[in-house]
Amino acid sequence: MSRFWSPIVQTLTPYVPGEQPKIANLIKLNTNENPFGPSRHVLDAIAAASGDALRLYPDPNADRLKETIARYHGIAPNEVFVGNGSDEVLAHTFMALLKHDKPLLHPDISYSFYPVYCGLYGVTSKQVPLDENMRINLADYNQDCGAIIIANPNAPTGIALTAAEIETLLQAHPDQVVVIDEAYIDFGGETVIPLIKRYPNLLVIQTLSKSRSLAGLRIGFAVGHPDLIEALDRVKNSFNSYPLDRLAIAAGVAAYEDETHFQRTTQAVMETRTNLVAGLTLLGFDVLPSATNFVFARHPRHDAAKLAADLRAKAILVRHFKQPRIDQYLRISIGTDAECEALVNALQDLIAA
Amino acid sequence: MSRFWSPIVQTLTPYVPGEQPKIANLIKLNTNENPFGPSRHVLDAIAAASGDALRLYPDPNADRLKETIARYHGIAPNEVFVGNGSDEVLAHTFMALLKHDKPLLHPDISYSFYPVYCGLYGVTSKQVPLDENMRINLADYNQDCGAIIIANPNAPTGIALTAAEIETLLQAHPDQVVVIDEAYIDFGGETVIPLIKRYPNLLVIQTLSKSRSLAGLRIGFAVGHPDLIEALDRVKNSFNSYPLDRLAIAAGVAAYEDETHFQRTTQAVMETRTNLVAGLTLLGFDVLPSATNFVFARHPRHDAAKLAADLRAKAILVRHFKQPRIDQYLRISIGTDAECEALVNALQDLIAA
Repeated sequence: MSRFWSPIVQTLTPYVPGEQPKIANLIKLNTNENPFGPSRHVLDAIAAASGDALRLYPDPNADRLKETIARYHGIAPNEVFVGNGSDEVLAHTFMALLKHDKPLLHPDISYSFYPVYCGLYGVTSKQVPLDENMRINLADYNQDCGAIIIANPNAPTGIALTAAEIETLLQAHPDQVVVIDEAYIDFGGETVIPLIKRYPNLLVIQTLSKSRSLAGLRIGFAVGHPDLIEALDRVKNSFNSYPLDRLAIAAGVAAYEDETHFQRTTQAVMETRTNLVAGLTLLGFDVLPSATNFVFARHPRHDAAKLAADLRAKAILVRHFKQPRIDQYLRISIGTDAECEALVNALQDLIAA
Repeated sequence: MSRFWSPIVQTLTPYVPGEQPKIANLIKLNTNENPFGPSRHVLDAIAAASGDALRLYPDPNADRLKETIARYHGIAPNEVFVGNGSDEVLAHTFMALLKHDKPLLHPDISYSFYPVYCGLYGVTSKQVPLDENMRINLADYNQDCGAIIIANPNAPTGIALTAAEIETLLQAHPDQVVVIDEAYIDFGGETVIPLIKRYPNLLVIQTLSKSRSLAGLRIGFAVGHPDLIEALDRVKNSFNSYPLDRLAIAAGVAAYEDETHFQRTTQAVMETRTNLVAGLTLLGFDVLPSATNFVFARHPRHDAAKLAADLRAKAILVRHFKQPRIDQYLRISIGTDAECEALVNALQDLIAA
């Protein structure tokens, strides 16, 4: 610690993202990236936006992108907030909407950035344990609180709640903001975006990093009642006027204009997932039911940390969390068919050895 | 105000960026953009980085960009922090390094985002008035404080301090962080980056938006002692793991690889500035001495707000601040020779009318 630091800095426990190593021929199944590249239409839009105009600031409001997202989801542009990846959108959400006298509720096993944001902004929180099947039991959220955030499908479990279940949560908490983080919704989950018209306390967050194959461009968004969006805009405009650059805005707009690519690639990921689950199950893994582009699996007779390390030695990366309750699980992103086959073969060798 | 907002949201007074209107044939001299586009080499680098790899996250540490900036300035990569425009770098700086029991000092007339950041993070601040010539008098900063931030050259005045003057400030404040915001340094100012080796309390912030013609891509950085950089990294890694996208990183690296383009365009801007100052002076304007890509000027007999509105009617945008002490000034960005000539002609007509 340095005497020059603001006091809060010492107290922070930063988030640790999945490794981004520079290893040749790596099979990278550790950060839930899409195995398919973005649409050709997206690349064309980037090329068209890349020229002398880069000397000019982007539109600070990214109106074209907001309008595109609004049209796609059948809502109004003033019900949309956009940011530099869903991580930035989440950060602003924690500051703008989740800091109250009463604690924020979130699952004990969920996106591990949530407690980090709480630390950054001094948000009091209370972790609600998943049940013994690693599921969110919504009845456990029927308690006094300031707000609620739930990832749906949850990460890293991959398990989804239905929209009807989430609606019961919204009905039980009319006076609290309920944030549903739908980063992985497009791989088999059911979005609650249509519910924003009836629940002014609902904020839904999505990202273009996973199902739109744009992790490299950092585009996320939130949708909700204009009052919630105004709070996010006030914080954003007190932080950085232009969080989305010109190329990201152009790419984000184009990503929604190629529905065929989106449907084809998300379907392909889900088919590969079915095969991967079958392969892992044959090897004796318990695999949680996934509605995401990853699976969460454990083997009753093989230590997860050792499996992850052994896979790494074979240039295959998966994610392992040294964290109570889940330290015997591996989180495996859905890669191409060939990558998933290579993973299953490698695991077979390790388990037989 | 909504009952769902975190209490702080109500208290915020967000920053208002210069207008980015969608008007055809506009002469846009209101947001200090570079009149020249980025180097061909930058556009090639973007094209090379734009492909399937966009499905992958960027390097969260943007190591290539840090190494490039470090090499350019003769410092070490761990003395560099990068972010999504210098606005994001500034925001993290206010949170990580400028919040202390004693007040932060900054000039009363300076980048108007500084008080906004103070509001966002609860930083106590004290504004130090510019002198009657609109200059920063460093003797006025010899007072008890928690930290100091100064834009050099200052905005919107355009006036620069020398590196030697800033060194006296650093010597007078060994126990406080001193941030020098050098957004406009490349248009005739003298950077204090070489001083970071001797002053562990010095943080220097720069941007690629102005002199590197990349406002559209949002790249800023800070350099200083590794302890200061660590504080920024801890906040950044508690906020957003990947603030710089793949295309911005590639473009930023390439921008430093074309020194010829950089020298040619910054020189051209300074030559145009000389002509613009001469033209404005002939029309009777008082023009402050500028070491930036804009000039700050007032006319003793013409109201600045009216001039700005009349120019707007002629599709010429300049910036006017409705703010005490400077409400009779216009801030005029240096455009192309043709744009500046058109501005002078328009002003001549308005003044004669």
